[in-house]
Amino acid sequence: MSFMNGNANGNGTANGNAYNGFYGYRHKMATLDQLFQPIQQKTEATGNKVTVVGSGQVGMAAVFAMLTQGVTNNIALVDCMADKLKGEMMDLQHGSCFMKDAKIQSSTDYAVSEGSKICVVTAGVRQRVGETRLELVQRNTDVLKVIIPQLVKYCPDAIFIIASNPVDVLTYVTWKISGLPKNRIIGSGTNLDSARFRYLLSEKLAVASTSCHGYVIGEHGDSSVPVWSGVNVAGVRLSDLNPKIGSDDDPENWKKIHEDVVKSAYEIIKLKGYTSWAIGLSLSQLCRAILYNMNSVHPVTTCVKGEHGIEDEVFLSLPCVLGRKGIYDIIRQTLTDSELTQLRKSAEVMAKLQAGIKF
Amino acid sequence: MSFMNGNANGNGTANGNAYNGFYGYRHKMATLDQLFQPIQQKTEATGNKVTVVGSGQVGMAAVFAMLTQGVTNNIALVDCMADKLKGEMMDLQHGSCFMKDAKIQSSTDYAVSEGSKICVVTAGVRQRVGETRLELVQRNTDVLKVIIPQLVKYCPDAIFIIASNPVDVLTYVTWKISGLPKNRIIGSGTNLDSARFRYLLSEKLAVASTSCHGYVIGEHGDSSVPVWSGVNVAGVRLSDLNPKIGSDDDPENWKKIHEDVVKSAYEIIKLKGYTSWAIGLSLSQLCRAILYNMNSVHPVTTCVKGEHGIEDEVFLSLPCVLGRKGIYDIIRQTLTDSELTQLRKSAEVMAKLQAGIKF
Amino acid sequence: MSFMNGNANGNGTANGNAYNGFYGYRHKMATLDQLFQPIQQKTEATGNKVTVVGSGQVGMAAVFAMLTQGVTNNIALVDCMADKLKGEMMDLQHGSCFMKDAKIQSSTDYAVSEGSKICVVTAGVRQRVGETRLELVQRNTDVLKVIIPQLVKYCPDAIFIIASNPVDVLTYVTWKISGLPKNRIIGSGTNLDSARFRYLLSEKLAVASTSCHGYVIGEHGDSSVPVWSGVNVAGVRLSDLNPKIGSDDDPENWKKIHEDVVKSAYEIIKLKGYTSWAIGLSLSQLCRAILYNMNSVHPVTTCVKGEHGIEDEVFLSLPCVLGRKGIYDIIRQTLTDSELTQLRKSAEVMAKLQAGIKF
Amino acid sequence: MSFMNGNANGNGTANGNAYNGFYGYRHKMATLDQLFQPIQQKTEATGNKVTVVGSGQVGMAAVFAMLTQGVTNNIALVDCMADKLKGEMMDLQHGSCFMKDAKIQSSTDYAVSEGSKICVVTAGVRQRVGETRLELVQRNTDVLKVIIPQLVKYCPDAIFIIASNPVDVLTYVTWKISGLPKNRIIGSGTNLDSARFRYLLSEKLAVASTSCHGYVIGEHGDSSVPVWSGVNVAGVRLSDLNPKIGSDDDPENWKKIHEDVVKSAYEIIKLKGYTSWAIGLSLSQLCRAILYNMNSVHPVTTCVKGEHGIEDEVFLSLPCVLGRKGIYDIIRQTLTDSELTQLRKSAEVMAKLQAGIKF
Repeated sequence: MSFMNGNANGNGTANGNAYNGFYGYRHKMATLDQLFQPIQQKTEATGNKVTVVGSGQVGMAAVFAMLTQGVTNNIALVDCMADKLKGEMMDLQHGSCFMKDAKIQSSTDYAVSEGSKICVVTAGVRQRVGETRLELVQRNTDVLKVIIPQLVKYCPDAIFIIASNPVDVLTYVTWKISGLPKNRIIGSGTNLDSARFRYLLSEKLAVASTSCHGYVIGEHGDSSVPVWSGVNVAGVRLSDLNPKIGSDDDPENWKKIHEDVVKSAYEIIKLKGYTSWAIGLSLSQLCRAILYNMNSVHPVTTCVKGEHGIEDEVFLSLPCVLGRKGIYDIIRQTLTDSELTQLRKSAEVMAKLQAGIKF
Repeated sequence: MSFMNGNANGNGTANGNAYNGFYGYRHKMATLDQLFQPIQQKTEATGNKVTVVGSGQVGMAAVFAMLTQGVTNNIALVDCMADKLKGEMMDLQHGSCFMKDAKIQSSTDYAVSEGSKICVVTAGVRQRVGETRLELVQRNTDVLKVIIPQLVKYCPDAIFIIASNPVDVLTYVTWKISGLPKNRIIGSGTNLDSARFRYLLSEKLAVASTSCHGYVIGEHGDSSVPVWSGVNVAGVRLSDLNPKIGSDDDPENWKKIHEDVVKSAYEIIKLKGYTSWAIGLSLSQLCRAILYNMNSVHPVTTCVKGEHGIEDEVFLSLPCVLGRKGIYDIIRQTLTDSELTQLRKSAEVMAKLQAGIKF
Repeated sequence: MSFMNGNANGNGTANGNAYNGFYGYRHKMATLDQLFQPIQQKTEATGNKVTVVGSGQVGMAAVFAMLTQGVTNNIALVDCMADKLKGEMMDLQHGSCFMKDAKIQSSTDYAVSEGSKICVVTAGVRQRVGETRLELVQRNTDVLKVIIPQLVKYCPDAIFIIASNPVDVLTYVTWKISGLPKNRIIGSGTNLDSARFRYLLSEKLAVASTSCHGYVIGEHGDSSVPVWSGVNVAGVRLSDLNPKIGSDDDPENWKKIHEDVVKSAYEIIKLKGYTSWAIGLSLSQLCRAILYNMNSVHPVTTCVKGEHGIEDEVFLSLPCVLGRKGIYDIIRQTLTDSELTQLRKSAEVMAKLQAGIKF
Repeated sequence: MSFMNGNANGNGTANGNAYNGFYGYRHKMATLDQLFQPIQQKTEATGNKVTVVGSGQVGMAAVFAMLTQGVTNNIALVDCMADKLKGEMMDLQHGSCFMKDAKIQSSTDYAVSEGSKICVVTAGVRQRVGETRLELVQRNTDVLKVIIPQLVKYCPDAIFIIASNPVDVLTYVTWKISGLPKNRIIGSGTNLDSARFRYLLSEKLAVASTSCHGYVIGEHGDSSVPVWSGVNVAGVRLSDLNPKIGSDDDPENWKKIHEDVVKSAYEIIKLKGYTSWAIGLSLSQLCRAILYNMNSVHPVTTCVKGEHGIEDEVFLSLPCVLGRKGIYDIIRQTLTDSELTQLRKSAEVMAKLQAGIKF
């Protein structure tokens, strides 16, 4: 019997697990009667509950980062693989006393997500050999058609963060399926690409990555756009020192940094089989910005119609101000002609791809 | 009036301060119009707002501890001394970028507390020369009769933590004035005395204070009761090794540790003029237990009627399980006859004191 | 070329990786010459460097926990699987700006561990079908004979934490191979079993795991010993309320909690294939206790000769005071006859096993 | 004399205090003999010790920020006011179990600072009515002539951070007195002015202060220079959107933000009597950058000879890369003519002031 459910709605056998979260239900027994004088019935509410759908490498790294970084202490995990799910939940629960008494629930039933402030979706199928991109998108759309309505049902006020790939088009798909306003649907987008970019800048500059400022925008992955015009340390634009920075004829070859960003995911997957830590940390940062209503700026996937001359209702990453209600503002960067061209090209590709999706 | 709206409707000088918290209102100007594409109106909600009444040494140490320890990033400060209040608020706000973009508001108007999850009351008058204890309590009761109804009005669902002294009787007074259920009124009580006790144990044992377990219960201050029977390291009761521990005829004189606890506040006040850091940290810990719904155990002031043979409706410290709804359970410790006698004596003194208060 | 090695010893191609940690080496180029006025050559020293040997699930969870919990910001990873190692390193490095500019190095060459304050060993082979326990121990001894001398060479002052299984006997083996004093060789031992025990207590008690105190000692795993006599909440021993606690004829069946602890690892491995998060957090806690010289108490594997009537030089878990120099004290718990019997039996088994190892 | 040894050899009253830090010395007594089996003598070393000279509002806020933010857990406090010092030490020690077992020592004897990695100097006299600036500087020089040689004696490898005012010239004075290389002498400088600047930008922009980038350089206080050319959000320079930003004829009056920065200290001192929280947090950030060898960029006081056309050996704030060895690099910002003129003027004033100091 699930303690939480046993307490909350009497339906304690939802996932057949005796230890599922900890919300204060006690069986009747003499030892406890002697030890406790009950004053008030407990609640599970914490005001910072986050549901993560998908207990794969990305989902679990995100959960572990959130718990250890103090972003939340209340996680609900959802997956269709009941065994994997229960194993991950138990493993996290056993670390409870190392993580400020974090509460972890899991279920194959979306009811476990009830009351979440954020839903992070990491679930999705992978590209098959010979499969076109549209076919992959269509299969993942079909997956999201199952997931999203359930989350909207149990978490009607939540902010949604999509991390499933291809992330930009799947953020659009989530927006369409959910029927929610644009501010509440966010894709993890190029927040990770930008972190990789800043790390590689920090290597070349021998300065901390947190002091190397730069944004990668547009499509997450191969066709992402590094905004060299904004790259700076202490407000000093590198492009003022080296006007050719990022271009093909720059003798210092800064362009390689963006090439390495693009290659990163492929290389790590080749080396270890998947990526997990950095994307987990990126998701944790976005959840912090939202839960703590920080108004901080992060490059994430949003609807870019009307920005930089894009006229289609497509989703790509631009720097956004994030807080409790999701996306508050898009930051309008000053882009070069070359940057604009790349961005618009991504938008066109995206528009075509979207046109082929069946809802 | 909601402060956020007050700010947002252009009336930013409600409390005579142009910079009062940061909730996303922008004056109209060309630079901002070029920089931002607004998507959604901002909110001030964070789900972890804490109001602290009193900007003295205790209140400010509590606020600073909560902000730096990540317990909350949303503080409202209330005091009747407008200048001091504004000075403290500005000083904290200037540290915003060192404290994960913490939001600090302040006002002499309790409206600023709206929507807080916890209200911490540190305000109160000090004992005058020649004043009886009852006279002091009466004067502070009169102060609380102003403060508490205002807080209840703006924060109808908050948990109240009282830190004003004498804390036990003023927790009772707050309960009476507020009309709220017992679980929602908590006194800071002997959580601090217990921390001092554990620190002094750690000195004598040469073991970290977090690994020295022991509780001081009863009245905060002079007549507090150290529960020697429960003092342990790694579950080893010191009283099993030394049955005379804590008694007058113990050759190892462990009793001195409790004597030093009692003297601590007096000594620090003599040396530096007031106490601040440890009580601030103690309050921060209690707020974390509540906001994060931790179900952790802390000795705090609560209504002890029915416990340990006490029949009066008096407030003293006992170990309590704390969470989002305040006090969930009282832990029933096994006390020795001597410990019971001391506790009941405190209860009698308290009952007499309470009888004299005019509401 | 490796930046760190390029800088530190001119041997920059040790692991053929262009981005390996970040220690301030800059190639000569005009942009950097304009941006920086160098004042002082950089160092890699941080005073908190930790080497983790083994980039499997346990090693990586430990590294990620340490980085996200702020235990260290300076990690060296060693493994013989060059690809996996590089993939994990890159994935962590890309999260640098989310983790306070953490520095991550890796190499198949132990030179990368130079100057570490702690070496955590998670490497080892797994049991083969039909293999005896002694055969497994011998194979892992052969592995440690390669690893330990290298670590001792590059980190002559480090504290060693062994997490490879079977952990107790391998801690003994490490001690033998290293030739170091006993205080510097620690096994992760029953720190994890105790965390599981406290979590399961917290479920039954409906109290935070950090407020449920209890120790599991002895051998990590099947024959571990729960010290029911010390289990307490707020200093209240549960065995005082229920003298039969933990025994076969306890009608409340508290014994099941220890049974579930023992079954935990098996169950999680069955469900998800391995354990990672809780053991990673346990190792992170032990590293914090050491690096911060905390003097805190943790049940870890140490030489127990002379304790509880054990006369062999065997290694088992007992509560120990940990700090910068490793193990400062063993805590002498008061055990029941039944607890003593179980512990001594484990010691005997261990002594026999040790006798068969070839160094 | 080492305090740890002083304590350990039974001479625990060196500075008249029975409880002065916690480094593992135990008096002989039966209870402890039964509880502990000693394995290894304890050490006080943590690798992150910080000495703070001055237990006034600034020093104490810095100490409290460092302890609560996890920058260090090992503080030595020095002051000539023995009572105040002991009161502050006791108050912090009592919070030990809320601050990861932080260790706090204090003494009027600088021997307590032994082995510190950083020495923060907040001590100094205040300006008397009618006193010239040079007279104030001379009096504080005389104070530093007592303090600095003592710190250099006991902490020969430490990095020095000066926070006493006027901070720029006193950093120069410290450098002269200490005889140490420039990288090891840092003034807190305009790191605080920049934090105030960023907070006020965040108010006007309705964006988190951590996402508003801008530097105030030059002299801490009245003649500080805001580098408007580098102010940016997401790499978008506000001066590209509004070329008149910061100037007298800017219709949007951004200049007021810098004016408010300059007025801040005066206003807060008028309102609450002193500044403490923001400067304490600023010092905590600088200590973190150094202890964790972060290579992060902060505007701090350093020797600016050779920068921006300054030819005198004067100390002013410029953005610097900080790490374990102090200042690694100065960042060469691109300044406008007006910014250069202001900076050089500060340098001239500073040179004249320095010329009048008697060492």
